[in-house]
Amino acid sequence: MRIHEELKKLATFSASENPSVTRILYTQQDLDARSYFIGLCEEADLKVRVDAIGNTFARWEGSDPSLPAIGTGSHIDAIPLSGMYDGTVGVFGGLEAIRLLQSEGFKPKRSIEVLLFTAEEPTRFFIGCLGSRMLSGQLKPEAAEKLKDSEGKFLNDVRESAGFKGDLSSIVLDKNYYYAFVELHIEQSPRLEAEKLDIGIVTKIAAPSAMKVKLIGEGGHAGAVMMPIRKDAGVAGAEIMIAAEKIAKESASEDTVATVGIFDILPRAVNSIPKEAYLEIDLRDTNPITRDKALNDLKAAIAEICVRRHIQYTLEMVNCDPPAICDEHVVNVVEHVVKDLGYSYKKLPSYAYHDSLFMAQLFPTTMIFIPSKDGISHRPDEYSSPEEIEMGVRVLAGALRKLSEL
Amino acid sequence: MRIHEELKKLATFSASENPSVTRILYTQQDLDARSYFIGLCEEADLKVRVDAIGNTFARWEGSDPSLPAIGTGSHIDAIPLSGMYDGTVGVFGGLEAIRLLQSEGFKPKRSIEVLLFTAEEPTRFFIGCLGSRMLSGQLKPEAAEKLKDSEGKFLNDVRESAGFKGDLSSIVLDKNYYYAFVELHIEQSPRLEAEKLDIGIVTKIAAPSAMKVKLIGEGGHAGAVMMPIRKDAGVAGAEIMIAAEKIAKESASEDTVATVGIFDILPRAVNSIPKEAYLEIDLRDTNPITRDKALNDLKAAIAEICVRRHIQYTLEMVNCDPPAICDEHVVNVVEHVVKDLGYSYKKLPSYAYHDSLFMAQLFPTTMIFIPSKDGISHRPDEYSSPEEIEMGVRVLAGALRKLSEL
Repeated sequence: MRIHEELKKLATFSASENPSVTRILYTQQDLDARSYFIGLCEEADLKVRVDAIGNTFARWEGSDPSLPAIGTGSHIDAIPLSGMYDGTVGVFGGLEAIRLLQSEGFKPKRSIEVLLFTAEEPTRFFIGCLGSRMLSGQLKPEAAEKLKDSEGKFLNDVRESAGFKGDLSSIVLDKNYYYAFVELHIEQSPRLEAEKLDIGIVTKIAAPSAMKVKLIGEGGHAGAVMMPIRKDAGVAGAEIMIAAEKIAKESASEDTVATVGIFDILPRAVNSIPKEAYLEIDLRDTNPITRDKALNDLKAAIAEICVRRHIQYTLEMVNCDPPAICDEHVVNVVEHVVKDLGYSYKKLPSYAYHDSLFMAQLFPTTMIFIPSKDGISHRPDEYSSPEEIEMGVRVLAGALRKLSEL
Repeated sequence: MRIHEELKKLATFSASENPSVTRILYTQQDLDARSYFIGLCEEADLKVRVDAIGNTFARWEGSDPSLPAIGTGSHIDAIPLSGMYDGTVGVFGGLEAIRLLQSEGFKPKRSIEVLLFTAEEPTRFFIGCLGSRMLSGQLKPEAAEKLKDSEGKFLNDVRESAGFKGDLSSIVLDKNYYYAFVELHIEQSPRLEAEKLDIGIVTKIAAPSAMKVKLIGEGGHAGAVMMPIRKDAGVAGAEIMIAAEKIAKESASEDTVATVGIFDILPRAVNSIPKEAYLEIDLRDTNPITRDKALNDLKAAIAEICVRRHIQYTLEMVNCDPPAICDEHVVNVVEHVVKDLGYSYKKLPSYAYHDSLFMAQLFPTTMIFIPSKDGISHRPDEYSSPEEIEMGVRVLAGALRKLSEL
């Protein structure tokens, strides 16, 4: 298949030296990679449309263009010093699947579209899934206009400099735009590899919520302030860590996970009582009900701990997106294709963020996972073999074919 | 009294601009300050002796020089950007007390000595009370020889460059060297000021113990690793923080305090499970029995937490000095002097480290505290008034007089 050479070529559009890949939204590398993709789509006789923030649609028109289309796609942006497969396999794999169907002489009834989403990674504007959030209407134009990058540049200014013009309100898709959406992606965890399976079919997509908690107590010399009168912000933070773990462990959903990945204390000296503490907490779940319950329980625990310990606190929700349940019918279609191809597979949840999380807000959606070596992702040694990629492409092509005939 | 001008002059021997004081062991500022002190001692007809690491003894010979002497003194080194009273009041106040007794025509039976201890602060060699540790034999010459500063220079080399020669084994004092030791010092906490008292008489000196704990668990993506199989080093560290607090709170001694002042987690990213955690824990007490029990309880708790959570750990004791109970007889002598002078006072523990902690291992010891404005120390705004310093000097002079006659 051509995809392997194309992925290698794509990896050269990078701000860091290969094998690492760095491709940040609206940088020259991003723009060059987009041009490369569009050129390949045009070679395949696809009609290309680019929206006001750069989401790129390459359409293979069906025999009944008035019907809602079948969508596939993913992203090509890459966080600093990451690898060459995350996202890209779904974009170039979508194109490859169409070429495969074309070579078989297939003519779709519904149109089939490959979608290159703008900025799934939060690198530049500190928000993940920028493109798919706007397509789904989850991020409103008014909110998008306020986004600034680390240099203080507004999204509106950099997108226009990069050549993406037009009104942000024109981006959102209608509920009837797609009949179904299927994203091909590397698994980014070691489950398929561990069970020696070819394919994963995603049944639900976890959504992370994240919060920043700042605690302010009272400092003092570690020798001079006796235990009963302390207001130690560090120990309060430690109790919050324990509470987050307990709430996730005791959740009714086995997919509830809570992680305190950042915990800083000030002044950070062995003989000083921590005056301040700062935590960033990630809480995710595939089930919106247990996710919201866990979030509420955690907020209540933080309040209780801080009141009891006489600690002042602020709590800021960084994001709180709804998880998605994949569409049973679309999952079944993919499962039939996998069985017909004779591949081994399992149905599994996706615990990572994907553009499909937002597509699923509007359209019947699923994802196809291929194995990731050692579960590694976001690193230069991220790897899926040519054979694994080809199996993924064949499953995607089969699914697009079937769905386009419905 | 002359001491006020002398303290001001002393503060000019500083590597930072006044009002801050920075005086690091064996720097030119330290050596100049020592020369200034020795010159004043010689003016007062005291016999000066300097040992192999710079501990400086200025002796007013008594009528029976064969008797164990009475010692007083403190330190003149100052951590970066600190104040002008910590330690210095006890060194120059000791000299002032002798001059006061001389001016009264008093002739001591036992000799009286002012001691300038080398490096009470841990700034240069990362160990507090270097001079008094060696005088008391708590730090052996073999261990001292291994000490290196942040530039990798050995203690032995820098002391010799600074002009302090001789065998380190000659430093340790005999148990009969002093009959009693009394250190004058600023309180460094706000207790006397809060109760509007002139003088504190120290009944016991807390000793800090400090440990470094490194935890190694397993990292992973915050979304992809489910709760039951996690080995989160961060939450293990949080449990250790809670355990340290609980052990100190439940100790039989109300002076037991435990503080986790440093807690770092790696890789420190909101969506990453902490793979490693690093804690520095300070645990102190005035009572050696409850202190050791708390230490043992904490070590047992760390072991239990790490075994239960499948976390590997290393625990390194940084220091673990015995607390000191002050000598009842010497405390009584000071109390009589304070009462005779009509000053208000209280007996209290010292929660901070002092050279007297090590003197107390060999000699009947106590300390005289004068109030610290707002309890502040180790800062340029550290302050005790001239009147407070003079009251401290008068109490010290009275105590030295009485003790020297016993």
